[in-house]
Amino acid sequence: MREFDVVVVGGSAAGITAAITCRRHYPEKNVLLVRKEEQVLIPCGIPYTFGTVGGPENNLIPNAVLVKNKIELLVDEVADIDCQGHTVETSGGETIGYQRLVLAMGSVPIVPPIAGSGKKNIFAIRKDVSYLNRLCQVMDTASDIAIVGCGFIGVEIAEECRRRHKDVNIRIVEMLRHCLQLVYDEEFCVRAEETLRGEGIDLLLDEKVEAFLGDGTVTGVRLASGNEVKADVVIMGIGAAANTELAKKAGLEIGPGRGIEVNRYMQTSDSSVFACGDCTDKVSFFDGKPSGLKLASIATMEARIAGANLFGTRRVNMGVIGVYSTLLGDTAFAAAGLTEASAREKGYRIVVGEAEAVNRHPGCMPGAEMMKVKLIFEAGSLVLLGGQVSGARSGGELINAISACIHQRMTADDIATFQTGTHPALTASPISYQLVNAAEMAIAASSEVSSRRGI
Amino acid sequence: MREFDVVVVGGSAAGITAAITCRRHYPEKNVLLVRKEEQVLIPCGIPYTFGTVGGPENNLIPNAVLVKNKIELLVDEVADIDCQGHTVETSGGETIGYQRLVLAMGSVPIVPPIAGSGKKNIFAIRKDVSYLNRLCQVMDTASDIAIVGCGFIGVEIAEECRRRHKDVNIRIVEMLRHCLQLVYDEEFCVRAEETLRGEGIDLLLDEKVEAFLGDGTVTGVRLASGNEVKADVVIMGIGAAANTELAKKAGLEIGPGRGIEVNRYMQTSDSSVFACGDCTDKVSFFDGKPSGLKLASIATMEARIAGANLFGTRRVNMGVIGVYSTLLGDTAFAAAGLTEASAREKGYRIVVGEAEAVNRHPGCMPGAEMMKVKLIFEAGSLVLLGGQVSGARSGGELINAISACIHQRMTADDIATFQTGTHPALTASPISYQLVNAAEMAIAASSEVSSRRGI
Repeated sequence: MREFDVVVVGGSAAGITAAITCRRHYPEKNVLLVRKEEQVLIPCGIPYTFGTVGGPENNLIPNAVLVKNKIELLVDEVADIDCQGHTVETSGGETIGYQRLVLAMGSVPIVPPIAGSGKKNIFAIRKDVSYLNRLCQVMDTASDIAIVGCGFIGVEIAEECRRRHKDVNIRIVEMLRHCLQLVYDEEFCVRAEETLRGEGIDLLLDEKVEAFLGDGTVTGVRLASGNEVKADVVIMGIGAAANTELAKKAGLEIGPGRGIEVNRYMQTSDSSVFACGDCTDKVSFFDGKPSGLKLASIATMEARIAGANLFGTRRVNMGVIGVYSTLLGDTAFAAAGLTEASAREKGYRIVVGEAEAVNRHPGCMPGAEMMKVKLIFEAGSLVLLGGQVSGARSGGELINAISACIHQRMTADDIATFQTGTHPALTASPISYQLVNAAEMAIAASSEVSSRRGI
Repeated sequence: MREFDVVVVGGSAAGITAAITCRRHYPEKNVLLVRKEEQVLIPCGIPYTFGTVGGPENNLIPNAVLVKNKIELLVDEVADIDCQGHTVETSGGETIGYQRLVLAMGSVPIVPPIAGSGKKNIFAIRKDVSYLNRLCQVMDTASDIAIVGCGFIGVEIAEECRRRHKDVNIRIVEMLRHCLQLVYDEEFCVRAEETLRGEGIDLLLDEKVEAFLGDGTVTGVRLASGNEVKADVVIMGIGAAANTELAKKAGLEIGPGRGIEVNRYMQTSDSSVFACGDCTDKVSFFDGKPSGLKLASIATMEARIAGANLFGTRRVNMGVIGVYSTLLGDTAFAAAGLTEASAREKGYRIVVGEAEAVNRHPGCMPGAEMMKVKLIFEAGSLVLLGGQVSGARSGGELINAISACIHQRMTADDIATFQTGTHPALTASPISYQLVNAAEMAIAASSEVSSRRGI
């Protein structure tokens, strides 16, 4: 029987990061990573395999990252865990001993119980190279693609289908009133919708799928409104559920959000077993209540906590904030923390500030594009709860400045006076820098509210 | 006599921002901005007037920003302040009453006492449209341009001269061993030097100017090493001194750094008179000691404090951090806080972490470029003291995330686990995100140091 100080189960963002983190914090420990996939896809890159990057084979996490960090790799499936005996059993028949076990089995796409969902040419987004290659092949002969779900996966796949295929019909069916509605406030969603429609992507919003039509092979989608749309390929992009099968079999506790229950140190109900990433239960940074967020950036954050805590507590999970970005057309859309809508839902009284400016100064500098920042603060305390950015691509980094501000519970005054570097060729001017001015506008709005109330 | 609630003296980044901030925080007050310039240049844009933006006229701060914020403008020079009487006297002969006065007179370029510095065609970088136009004209007939000082102004002007002029000889003379040495650590400076040399810009480092040669008109520069270089134009870019003439005449106190003395609320020694920007004395965020930093981003930060505090204390100046960015060739260089060298100079024991990765994932996504992050932490506490970025243009925003981390005195563990959004088309992958990994590398280095010492 082989024995390792640390065994990591799962080879995607969480598993790799947990293993690397362990290597950095405990250089003397030996680490084995067990995964069932021969090849590991970069999860967030999957939509781009359909167009921009030219196929799943170009979107792999190289094994070099493991070799470089002296992490042993076993391609096999962990079938059982013996928590008492500190061993795992693989499908390949091997028994492996561990001192610490890290579970990072990720998630599986949700396939809702819709009539006809077993028909041919209905795909989910599985992290599986040959499955995605099959989807690509089917797409190439399709004339009508229907995407179910207008979240990030849905919109990104729609754009990439368009890139692959100038004249296929592409339709996205979404239950909610707006695309990306759970992540952005309405004005950002509307801008995203305009971008998508401008690319000839049909958006069927506020529409629920009732059934998939066709004999054996899908030919269309019937909506609850009675409408029917043609479809020779259907792609489901409506989210994922924690992969907890192995943990359940091992008798580990499952949390209220149906993920593996973990404490703030990322330990499961067995103190030698840690878990991180999509397979674990999560709580919100803001109110400690269950959160359904599943993001690679959260997975790696949790993995950096788990990996560092394996042989001594060093880090605490503060709960998930949710930081997102995407590019639609030439416009970056990014968000962190709560939207206006989600803050109100959590019971916050809020005040909002917005600022839009060109991302160069003067505006005739090359690469000049507009960039808009919206910040959402708790009324009264003016503590930052969330932010959204749209416009230039550098918004993908600016959102991480906003995330740092949320994480540190910075107030509007803190943000208005923190020192931000600016440069003619890289950012807005120091006078019109969007992040700082959005904070100022929230303060101005907040004093207006106070003075109108006679406070 | 006209009377205003608030009179602001100076119409550049600090003055405008103080006036706007006052307008936002005290919407009922009337505000007058007095400046002597008919046209106001965007200060950081001045180097780009020589090339990219095509002339000083394209690099102006529009008066619209004042109109929009209901700030009255008077183009005239304030010649005297009567602190007792709460009035200012202009060169135009007007007496204006104020309740609060904000001084934002900026700085004047330093012209060192070098033999021959009065010769024709030796220019400083004055914020004056006609002066800069004259410089442009002279440049156009020049064959040898010498720039004195290899800080930001020096390197940016050198590149813009090259853009204007494919075949003029351009030489920068710098006293220190490296270009930009006060802002970046050596490896970043060396990379900047390679970029500049690749553009045919000659760097004469570790060389001091001893005299300017020529009869009446400059023809060359003699260096302390004995070398001589030809020059029919000389541009001095060696820094600026606080413009305190008016404040001194008014009897306001001057600080140890030769700027107007202000407290943490940006009040001068007269409690009705505030000051902000290049004309004020500054202290370091890190140790409260005098700081010579003069940046538009600091000026606007101070202006946002002064403007908000005019009729009631709301904000406190935590001291200057120094956040910079620039673009040389296609490479962004950005820095915040202390370098390795400056941290050591202040007596810190430090630990450093670096991470470099492509700013897209997978690396075949369009726009992929390398981006490197270096972080400097205090040893032991692992509190962030500084950061440097080189590579892709989005580094101009990333540096502001680093600045937020410095401002909040975040530790390496805080940074390694704060939630950063990533996207294939916009940033590095969540596994290789540079900011987070640089923090992890510093922790790894720190444990190595501890274990080598047997701690």
